[in-house]
Amino acid sequence: MNGHRMSAEMAEQPERLRALIARTDEVEATVQSIAPRPLRGVTLVARGSSDHAAVYGRYLLEQATGKPISLAAPSLHTLYGVRADYEGQLAIAISQSGRTPEIVTTLRRLCDAGARGLAITNDGTSEIAQAARGVIELGVGEERAVPATKTVTAQLAAFAQIAGALGDAPFSRGELEAVPKWVQQVLDDPQPAEAAAEALVDAPHLIVVARGFLYGAALETALKIKETCSILADGYSSADLRHGPIAAVTRDFPVIAISAPGPAADDVLDLVAELRRRGARTLLISPDEEADIPLPQGMPETLAPIVAVVRGQQVARALALALELDPDSPPGLSKVTVT
Amino acid sequence: MNGHRMSAEMAEQPERLRALIARTDEVEATVQSIAPRPLRGVTLVARGSSDHAAVYGRYLLEQATGKPISLAAPSLHTLYGVRADYEGQLAIAISQSGRTPEIVTTLRRLCDAGARGLAITNDGTSEIAQAARGVIELGVGEERAVPATKTVTAQLAAFAQIAGALGDAPFSRGELEAVPKWVQQVLDDPQPAEAAAEALVDAPHLIVVARGFLYGAALETALKIKETCSILADGYSSADLRHGPIAAVTRDFPVIAISAPGPAADDVLDLVAELRRRGARTLLISPDEEADIPLPQGMPETLAPIVAVVRGQQVARALALALELDPDSPPGLSKVTVT
Repeated sequence: MNGHRMSAEMAEQPERLRALIARTDEVEATVQSIAPRPLRGVTLVARGSSDHAAVYGRYLLEQATGKPISLAAPSLHTLYGVRADYEGQLAIAISQSGRTPEIVTTLRRLCDAGARGLAITNDGTSEIAQAARGVIELGVGEERAVPATKTVTAQLAAFAQIAGALGDAPFSRGELEAVPKWVQQVLDDPQPAEAAAEALVDAPHLIVVARGFLYGAALETALKIKETCSILADGYSSADLRHGPIAAVTRDFPVIAISAPGPAADDVLDLVAELRRRGARTLLISPDEEADIPLPQGMPETLAPIVAVVRGQQVARALALALELDPDSPPGLSKVTVT
Repeated sequence: MNGHRMSAEMAEQPERLRALIARTDEVEATVQSIAPRPLRGVTLVARGSSDHAAVYGRYLLEQATGKPISLAAPSLHTLYGVRADYEGQLAIAISQSGRTPEIVTTLRRLCDAGARGLAITNDGTSEIAQAARGVIELGVGEERAVPATKTVTAQLAAFAQIAGALGDAPFSRGELEAVPKWVQQVLDDPQPAEAAAEALVDAPHLIVVARGFLYGAALETALKIKETCSILADGYSSADLRHGPIAAVTRDFPVIAISAPGPAADDVLDLVAELRRRGARTLLISPDEEADIPLPQGMPETLAPIVAVVRGQQVARALALALELDPDSPPGLSKVTVT
């Protein structure tokens, strides 16, 4: 059956998240044992869905530590042979398989340049785990569908744990422990995502917008739709969209917006109103009453991305099925990408 | 006449670049007088086209200094009130007008947190210039067309100057001084870009790919097309494209690829071959003989982005005219964006 594996792996998420979050003290101890003191900054190394977890991590870790957080440009280390000085940096590499060659090479180079290496991976014996000084094993089990789902929510949760280990996390332990329940609520309510997919079935392309902590969820939702539906879907920060790209949003242009109550909400909701005035077809993912695709009430904005990406998975899977595609095995993609 | 202002401002670029590059010693002295010692890293603050100059700067400055370079997430400073510690950081804010509120606020916050501030702007009396300890005035004169052109090439050249000030620039002074001549060669040869525009006139959307130093030029070319032609165009690193988004590249999908001889060329040309096998319509901007849109011979890859974005400007302008749009004043855009 089309989409069977993806669906089964999506359904595992509450249980996998619960198991990972139960190990929070252990994860914090690992991170604290390897983080440089003083910590000068954090560099994140990833591609694809893992890179979207890193975008979320970038906001969380800068909020928690106050230090500059950067996303590595792997080609500088794999192609251009930069002579780096990463003394005082924590380098966090994120890879489901732990085998993406350029991620492994980049982590090695950063460690050679003085960084302390931490790996977030589903395989604690992988090359990336061996290259790092410490490992956060996601423990989500084998992921067989090509589009990453349970891996991504676990990576996002791991960043929440790392934020708590390095500084003041912008959420409580109790709120983190409630994440599996919120994910379950979303999984138990697939109908709004299916209705959204029906509304998008003739879309030649679309964009997904969010801001701040939810920006990574917009990027991930866009990627899931590209991967499973073979249509161009791009994620934007609402601020970036206003700096030019909004010109491309003409009448009937499909836009998915993701929002949650918090400092970024006004900006996203203002943008949605502006896009509606331009005649765009907007679908709002949010805990607001007028949302097309609801999110649970009461989540802090800083944890909402973990739950919002599950809405994105549902929309992508439902849209692929409506397009008579198999989201488990998109044409021309494989599970481990060699770059 | 549609596109008259944009065309006139594009034509000024060789002369504006020559004047800026003639001030390289002065720019280097400014940068050296304010850069922290020791320099722990550089943080770049920008949106829109300026952000694409920053992406180029990110590669150049990390290559020149070996230190971690990050692109700021402005919302952390303008919305979330992060308590930052940016001691030892050089913070470079890039804004044509110098008045984009969130860029000004973010620069101020980073300076309050210990960073030394440098502004790259066209207005040396602007708020961003006042917030910074040092200023690189681009001196390109008023820019009246909404799509930034001469500002962008000057911003890119400014980053080349900053790289030389902070470390070992990956090009010679003589090569930098040759940039205006290469830009003139492109401007004197508009026909290939016009032919490309004809080939793209029915495109519902497109993507632009490059890698490494040229990645910023791909982002900027995509933005110029979105702004002037009101069609969805997105820029990708060739490595990122393979991590999922390639699934959206189906038969007849239009792709512009940008390449120049250097460490990243093989990866981009391999991707072009792969996309052609998938039936994509590819247009190659490169100094290669088989390029659809040629670039001058003999440029170092590290300076090629300054010239390649001019090809992107030509394609965007020609495509807008072919679509009977006025690239000078795209609907719903203004010159200064408030976010």
